[in-house]
Amino acid sequence: MMIVMKPEATTDQVEAVVERVESVGCTAHVSRGDELTVIGAIGDRDHVQALGLEGAPGVDHLVPILKPFKLASTQFRKGERSVFDIDGRKVGGEHFALIAGPCTVESREQTLEVADVVNDAGVSMLRGGAYKPRTSPYSFQGLGGEGLKLLQEAKERTGLPIVTELMDVRDVEDVVEVADVIQIGARNMQNYSLLAEVGRTDCAVLIKRGLAATLEELLMAAEYVLKEGNERVMLCERGIRTHETAYRFTLDLLAVPALQEMSHLPVIIDPSHAAGRRDWVKPMSLAAAAAGADGIIVEVHNEPEEAICDGPQALATESFADYVDQVRATAEIAGKQVSVVA
Amino acid sequence: MMIVMKPEATTDQVEAVVERVESVGCTAHVSRGDELTVIGAIGDRDHVQALGLEGAPGVDHLVPILKPFKLASTQFRKGERSVFDIDGRKVGGEHFALIAGPCTVESREQTLEVADVVNDAGVSMLRGGAYKPRTSPYSFQGLGGEGLKLLQEAKERTGLPIVTELMDVRDVEDVVEVADVIQIGARNMQNYSLLAEVGRTDCAVLIKRGLAATLEELLMAAEYVLKEGNERVMLCERGIRTHETAYRFTLDLLAVPALQEMSHLPVIIDPSHAAGRRDWVKPMSLAAAAAGADGIIVEVHNEPEEAICDGPQALATESFADYVDQVRATAEIAGKQVSVVA
Amino acid sequence: MMIVMKPEATTDQVEAVVERVESVGCTAHVSRGDELTVIGAIGDRDHVQALGLEGAPGVDHLVPILKPFKLASTQFRKGERSVFDIDGRKVGGEHFALIAGPCTVESREQTLEVADVVNDAGVSMLRGGAYKPRTSPYSFQGLGGEGLKLLQEAKERTGLPIVTELMDVRDVEDVVEVADVIQIGARNMQNYSLLAEVGRTDCAVLIKRGLAATLEELLMAAEYVLKEGNERVMLCERGIRTHETAYRFTLDLLAVPALQEMSHLPVIIDPSHAAGRRDWVKPMSLAAAAAGADGIIVEVHNEPEEAICDGPQALATESFADYVDQVRATAEIAGKQVSVVA
Amino acid sequence: MMIVMKPEATTDQVEAVVERVESVGCTAHVSRGDELTVIGAIGDRDHVQALGLEGAPGVDHLVPILKPFKLASTQFRKGERSVFDIDGRKVGGEHFALIAGPCTVESREQTLEVADVVNDAGVSMLRGGAYKPRTSPYSFQGLGGEGLKLLQEAKERTGLPIVTELMDVRDVEDVVEVADVIQIGARNMQNYSLLAEVGRTDCAVLIKRGLAATLEELLMAAEYVLKEGNERVMLCERGIRTHETAYRFTLDLLAVPALQEMSHLPVIIDPSHAAGRRDWVKPMSLAAAAAGADGIIVEVHNEPEEAICDGPQALATESFADYVDQVRATAEIAGKQVSVVA
Repeated sequence: MMIVMKPEATTDQVEAVVERVESVGCTAHVSRGDELTVIGAIGDRDHVQALGLEGAPGVDHLVPILKPFKLASTQFRKGERSVFDIDGRKVGGEHFALIAGPCTVESREQTLEVADVVNDAGVSMLRGGAYKPRTSPYSFQGLGGEGLKLLQEAKERTGLPIVTELMDVRDVEDVVEVADVIQIGARNMQNYSLLAEVGRTDCAVLIKRGLAATLEELLMAAEYVLKEGNERVMLCERGIRTHETAYRFTLDLLAVPALQEMSHLPVIIDPSHAAGRRDWVKPMSLAAAAAGADGIIVEVHNEPEEAICDGPQALATESFADYVDQVRATAEIAGKQVSVVA
Repeated sequence: MMIVMKPEATTDQVEAVVERVESVGCTAHVSRGDELTVIGAIGDRDHVQALGLEGAPGVDHLVPILKPFKLASTQFRKGERSVFDIDGRKVGGEHFALIAGPCTVESREQTLEVADVVNDAGVSMLRGGAYKPRTSPYSFQGLGGEGLKLLQEAKERTGLPIVTELMDVRDVEDVVEVADVIQIGARNMQNYSLLAEVGRTDCAVLIKRGLAATLEELLMAAEYVLKEGNERVMLCERGIRTHETAYRFTLDLLAVPALQEMSHLPVIIDPSHAAGRRDWVKPMSLAAAAAGADGIIVEVHNEPEEAICDGPQALATESFADYVDQVRATAEIAGKQVSVVA
Repeated sequence: MMIVMKPEATTDQVEAVVERVESVGCTAHVSRGDELTVIGAIGDRDHVQALGLEGAPGVDHLVPILKPFKLASTQFRKGERSVFDIDGRKVGGEHFALIAGPCTVESREQTLEVADVVNDAGVSMLRGGAYKPRTSPYSFQGLGGEGLKLLQEAKERTGLPIVTELMDVRDVEDVVEVADVIQIGARNMQNYSLLAEVGRTDCAVLIKRGLAATLEELLMAAEYVLKEGNERVMLCERGIRTHETAYRFTLDLLAVPALQEMSHLPVIIDPSHAAGRRDWVKPMSLAAAAAGADGIIVEVHNEPEEAICDGPQALATESFADYVDQVRATAEIAGKQVSVVA
Repeated sequence: MMIVMKPEATTDQVEAVVERVESVGCTAHVSRGDELTVIGAIGDRDHVQALGLEGAPGVDHLVPILKPFKLASTQFRKGERSVFDIDGRKVGGEHFALIAGPCTVESREQTLEVADVVNDAGVSMLRGGAYKPRTSPYSFQGLGGEGLKLLQEAKERTGLPIVTELMDVRDVEDVVEVADVIQIGARNMQNYSLLAEVGRTDCAVLIKRGLAATLEELLMAAEYVLKEGNERVMLCERGIRTHETAYRFTLDLLAVPALQEMSHLPVIIDPSHAAGRRDWVKPMSLAAAAAGADGIIVEVHNEPEEAICDGPQALATESFADYVDQVRATAEIAGKQVSVVA
């Protein structure tokens, strides 16, 4: 932590800060410039932050130097990237996870039909929502336990690992029975009880970035899961909220190289929710693959016009195989292979 | 819902949309202009939305006309503002709720000392956190149940109603034993399980706006609570995330008149978290009162420099009485009186 | 400038950075911590920045410590606030500049009628646009030179100083003949040719913050004017662009105390353009005064419903005197008096 | 334009609005729903907007239906994309414009060396800045006229068309003597005098999106140029300002398909300024090509560590040919060929 003093700060004020920094077991390095003095506090960031020096006499502002995340950091693995296994499919490194399926599990017929199509096209995992977070309390909230059973059936039929969302700590036992990857939605990215709870399961976790979350906050959310001992965490960028209203969210693809530099965890892109429209999902999927993402998660529907939820953004099953071919070719330019069971 | 067709849409495409709109029990009004055709779908917005017309042939885009919230809307109360009672203090209308107390309950001494000071200064309610949402899993997470007991003691001593945060559905029973107002934090504004759960209690609720939430989404969060039968809901603006980094968040005071026009619910401002600095809390408190807010919620600490959490933004107890005088005078210019027990 | 090295940076890499810092005449202070090394470069920020160290081997990132603005900074005046005179009216310090008038000069009758009303209500200056920046090339672009003449007539009639916008360097001579304050619009905040040009006039300048500009960038725009020798500069916050669509822009009142801490220049608030609606202009005007602003600039129209431009946000002349009374009372709570000719 | 009335609007209020709409030559279609009434105003959007109905009794809000841009719209060319010629290189449609060169023209040696390298690698055009918009008045502002001469020499030597920025209306004659494409920087996107001036030249124009501009505003800026008769306009996305601070700007690649749907004009991506770092420029360049962009504009430097301006983001000349190969392969997947002289 660097403590920048005001230009008019007195020697006494500088010394008072040094004393307080040392009182919590940190070392203080004082650099006096022509215009102002900067104090480097070397030691535990949390201890220094707890001092509340922002309000202290003579202090202008504090600049954090060390990143607050530890287990999620690149340094923790000494620069090596996390590569882990999800029911036989590798995620991370040179593997490209292609996750596809319906937004919401609506019926047995729809679920199995979509599962078959994406399986035939060679995807890595099947996604599908049983519990749906909805802005309106009057909207369809998902089939719940019934939906989980249909996902189980789809898994048995296709052999694909299942990615599905968990919203409520009280459902964790039911969800882990079916899920290979628990999805934490963007709205729950800072629901710390939920994060700690999935950290205690042995199920992999995909955490979606909140729509105003910084990359650092996303990594702190991952840290909540990692801290409980669960190492299989995927980060997911799904669009942030900006001033632009021509699309639902702004897909932030710079997050791919930036997160890969900050963390060893795999970075997945969800192009469907930002685009909000089927015809924009393909260009954004290819862009994600070209940017070096470790995977994408997309929505597919057998009858998009009849979908209960988010139909307009679902890819149609007819053209899905062609779509996969183009994604695969683009991922290869970026040095990655679509991950399938060995 | 207005459905705007593309300029090149054919008559058949227009008719197909009309047919689908009518198939879900809505009426379609077609307006043909020189350049394009607009179809007004009159009826249940959710039914029309479920049609997923954004992807349909010839459709350019959809424009929602009706607001999606109902119970929270101004129309629901026919333009009359909600005024309700919290343990003898009125909230809403001409009443200004002045809520003050420590960010976090840290110790018996600190809690009771701050409680006494704010009570002597004539505040409406006492705030204090027992469960604290923290970005880092390594930070102090609050005293939990022990903190609730201290709040209970402060309540018995001063008679002030208690405002405290709930983060986990599993803690709801413990919290309602002490709380007069359950606070839902900004990070949990779209934790729908939690909202529904507090909607089922008979405790008042204060919902903080998420840092990228629209006013409409905040009202939809309120709708989740109202729908369960709990009518005592307060909306709280606490700063949104923007491009500006000179402060932690950007306090959005236009939310005051805008929310008051959209909804009958009281609008409370939290100036402490956006400012992040003690000396900016007073100007923002006065600005909130001048803007016509129905109250403010601020942090006060007896020894701000020793605070475990958010010390730099806590008002000091010494100058608190003067602060209250200025807030009171400003609220009066805007036509409101600080609410105290009758 | 602090140069934060990567945790894995070698001693050679640290030394290479030190050498480059010293090669441009700066001093390098090295602080080695347990986890990483930080190098403080003491000296001219521009020289260090020109080194382009962001890309150098072993460097993680750079943290600027000194503010890039000099003449605009609080330190430049040793903490004393700028107070200057505009044709007999004081701006800054304990003076509250109340600037009012039509958005656009539309006709002789409208201009003079509004000028009389605001003059009678006791404002400090008259605003009015002759050159109008419009998003659409098909919209009315202002009366130009004809409008300037009408402002001249209003000035002679009322004695009020004139605030009017300049958009094109080629119009500077015409505008300074009439204007007491040249307004630089938000869209031109980083039109550096224009800023330098008005810096060379002896006319006061009001610079509106760009809708995505940081406070630091606003002060850098002021610096362009100050550098040319023009000391009478006012900063103006007029709303920033955020995700919220319930209003045109988000009025950022935290900019008031923040700018007043960073700079000695007066801070004016424009509540009309953010609100975009007449009934929200008053609460935001009072909030600005309560926040400690050095003035406000508002739009008034004699027949708002007939206004060519921005009519919906103009205050009506009938209720203007009452409005001024409330603004005056609120400014007094914040310690300021409305500025009128001595 | 749709005029949404308040739920409590009276029949008289509806009729008053209808009357005013008809008074400016538009037709009013009234749709009465169960909850509220919507009036469709069919005719010239500007006329309806000039009515200022937002403030009228009973009116809730207005929803614009028609896009405000005309010449830039897809409809203007009946869905056909603009393809034009710049000194023998095609831009638009299936052509991918690869524009590369130094950020700033610094010296004869640097300019010619970089020009040779990018020419050998097969780019479409050479970029280079002679006039540089700088946030600080103390930073290097470009070589000006001297820089233009160096660009002229590079053009004669390589035969590459020149893209260079214009900042001041008074420099237009000098710039058009050398430039094949005039670049309008992001900070000048709404400098309407400048836009109109370049619209009157016969030089192609590349307009960069302002960092808080909507796509619609970018198209309105293009409209200012098109309106003067200049048809060769390119749109350029270069990163928008968001809450994320891990990079300088957030590159918004959804702008590619969205602008291509809204307008017939070519869409170019500048990946260098958003990334701000050399190693992130390649993934973003590939992502832009994969997203279907009509070209990219990137910075290249022979000695990036010595660059006067923006060195950290310039690609190095050594690896430039490999970079071009990967961009070319990715553009081909998206159906485009790098444009070179026939």
